[in-house]
Amino acid sequence: MISVSARAVAGPETRFAPTMIARREPGSHDVVIDIAYAGICHSDIEHARALRGRPYYPLVPGHEIAGTVAAVGQAVTRFAVGNAVGVGNMVWSCRACPSCQRGLEQYCEGQRVLTYNARDRDGSITQGGYSEKIVVDQDFVIRIPDGMDLASAAPLFCAGITMYSPLRHWNAGPGMRVGIVGLGGLGHMGVKLARALGAEVTVLELAREKRADAFRLGATQFLDSTDPASFASSAASFDLIISTVPGNVDLDALLSLLAADGTLVSLAITPRPLSCEAVSLLNNRRSLAGTRSGGISETQEMIDFCAAHGIAAEVEVISADDIDAAYERLLRGDVRYRFVIDTATMRLEFA
Amino acid sequence: MISVSARAVAGPETRFAPTMIARREPGSHDVVIDIAYAGICHSDIEHARALRGRPYYPLVPGHEIAGTVAAVGQAVTRFAVGNAVGVGNMVWSCRACPSCQRGLEQYCEGQRVLTYNARDRDGSITQGGYSEKIVVDQDFVIRIPDGMDLASAAPLFCAGITMYSPLRHWNAGPGMRVGIVGLGGLGHMGVKLARALGAEVTVLELAREKRADAFRLGATQFLDSTDPASFASSAASFDLIISTVPGNVDLDALLSLLAADGTLVSLAITPRPLSCEAVSLLNNRRSLAGTRSGGISETQEMIDFCAAHGIAAEVEVISADDIDAAYERLLRGDVRYRFVIDTATMRLEFA
Repeated sequence: MISVSARAVAGPETRFAPTMIARREPGSHDVVIDIAYAGICHSDIEHARALRGRPYYPLVPGHEIAGTVAAVGQAVTRFAVGNAVGVGNMVWSCRACPSCQRGLEQYCEGQRVLTYNARDRDGSITQGGYSEKIVVDQDFVIRIPDGMDLASAAPLFCAGITMYSPLRHWNAGPGMRVGIVGLGGLGHMGVKLARALGAEVTVLELAREKRADAFRLGATQFLDSTDPASFASSAASFDLIISTVPGNVDLDALLSLLAADGTLVSLAITPRPLSCEAVSLLNNRRSLAGTRSGGISETQEMIDFCAAHGIAAEVEVISADDIDAAYERLLRGDVRYRFVIDTATMRLEFA
Repeated sequence: MISVSARAVAGPETRFAPTMIARREPGSHDVVIDIAYAGICHSDIEHARALRGRPYYPLVPGHEIAGTVAAVGQAVTRFAVGNAVGVGNMVWSCRACPSCQRGLEQYCEGQRVLTYNARDRDGSITQGGYSEKIVVDQDFVIRIPDGMDLASAAPLFCAGITMYSPLRHWNAGPGMRVGIVGLGGLGHMGVKLARALGAEVTVLELAREKRADAFRLGATQFLDSTDPASFASSAASFDLIISTVPGNVDLDALLSLLAADGTLVSLAITPRPLSCEAVSLLNNRRSLAGTRSGGISETQEMIDFCAAHGIAAEVEVISADDIDAAYERLLRGDVRYRFVIDTATMRLEFA
């Protein structure tokens, strides 16, 4: 076993505290990664605070991981010591089911293992990226293109792929009118990616003070999502809308913005069921859809696309001692646009 | 004006009674149709009985019309006296908006006029097919292929196209696993059409006595939609499910049946909002969609497809005096599979 420093919560109402966790000795297909940065995703808060599902405590969140290869198993062919690599929200899937065969490991019908708070094949509970090292099967490791900053690359492994995958699946590109609801960690990547794909991008956001940022990031229109006039004036004018809001929103209002054959993608695991009037879908043959992150080869495609277009997340790098404070700020929407933990601050000499 | 016999309701709780209604003198682009048969759609009941929307009384329902051309305006080029023709649920659209330009007149963003209970361009209220004649702009008249029985063709103009359009839009064909929920007027056409398109068809139905019919119509599987075991054993095994049930159903249960990228199409205008858990969509990147009938050129394509494959509706022909009784039987599900009014029974000598 490899013993590494990490930050964990002991229960839903405790603060993060330094701890040591065990990583397995690398098997022949494993990659040992020295984690440099770990992004903070809204779902980390939901798990740490038991706002959904059943957390296993002590819990080390983190599924936006960027770092450097420290060691490789003997059968590892795709990575070498020193490579810049990343890990997202999955560390295992069956690779045999129809979904895995199509590169949709996120919908694996067999045994998918999430990066943290999940039962691993050996029965242990996975622990995430708020730690110094992680050991991952090479099939779930992504190569970070040369020259990319690791801190701003880390959030691409969840926020980036979670936006890129639906944008690509629903064909965002030239001539497509795309709306991004909520300009946060996911939303800001959605704007950058949709614009880079050639789409015309509108931001729908309740915080009017983000208007200037929306345009700077690539939007050509900003709609105040609290103003009914925004919806009336933009009825039936979008082909694809992706809602990044981590809660229930007025789906009928958003659906009314879709032109014929338009799709509203809702990314949130909402506290209450999704609900809309039947006519909101019947009109214009609209669809309401959901997605979960993206597949492994698609994640590689995403980060290569980001490198080619000079895109990355806009991050605020924090110390591991400031995770609790960052959670509070994130819940207030006070982050532009992703907190990233500098894991060097976890080393024992700092603890 | 042309005065013709019809059957109308005077209010939401009255019985159908003989009446005379006025049809406009044909304009240069109009086709005068001697109606032979008019199908009874569930939505006729909803309108006649004021179960949705705001009916204009006296109300003559009927948007599944088959008959023969009696006269044509001077600019009519596509039809001649004696042609077998049909009319569905639209008699006008703008033909200039993006939807009309794409052949999606059912989503016209300008002025679409429904076949009955709608305000026409001249301010009058349209009256439907429960009548002897109708006058319709040639662009909204469909040619019925030679040799097709008019009684069993009539339901194709609503039930047929309402199933054909989503089946085609979501690519029903060889290798696709299609579920049809509810084996009624729409559902039985859905089974026939999906099978003729080459898809593998399952019927989900609560009436187990329809099992034999499901197989006769072309299904290869029958699932009892009241049995939780049906859902457990068929999880994630469909690519497309179309629900024809005219009310709220358990969408989470139906969504659980969809494999990766599957779509659930709900055709009903439901009394209560549609509702499902967010994870029901997030899992397998599922979509919940709606559609309204189909476009004009697609309706022509549908009936040509039906003729080529020897498909039509299974009908029970009734007298105009039996409309009220037919409504009661339809509400009980006691029809295999569409009531069609023989409009010859409306003539004054019969009244």
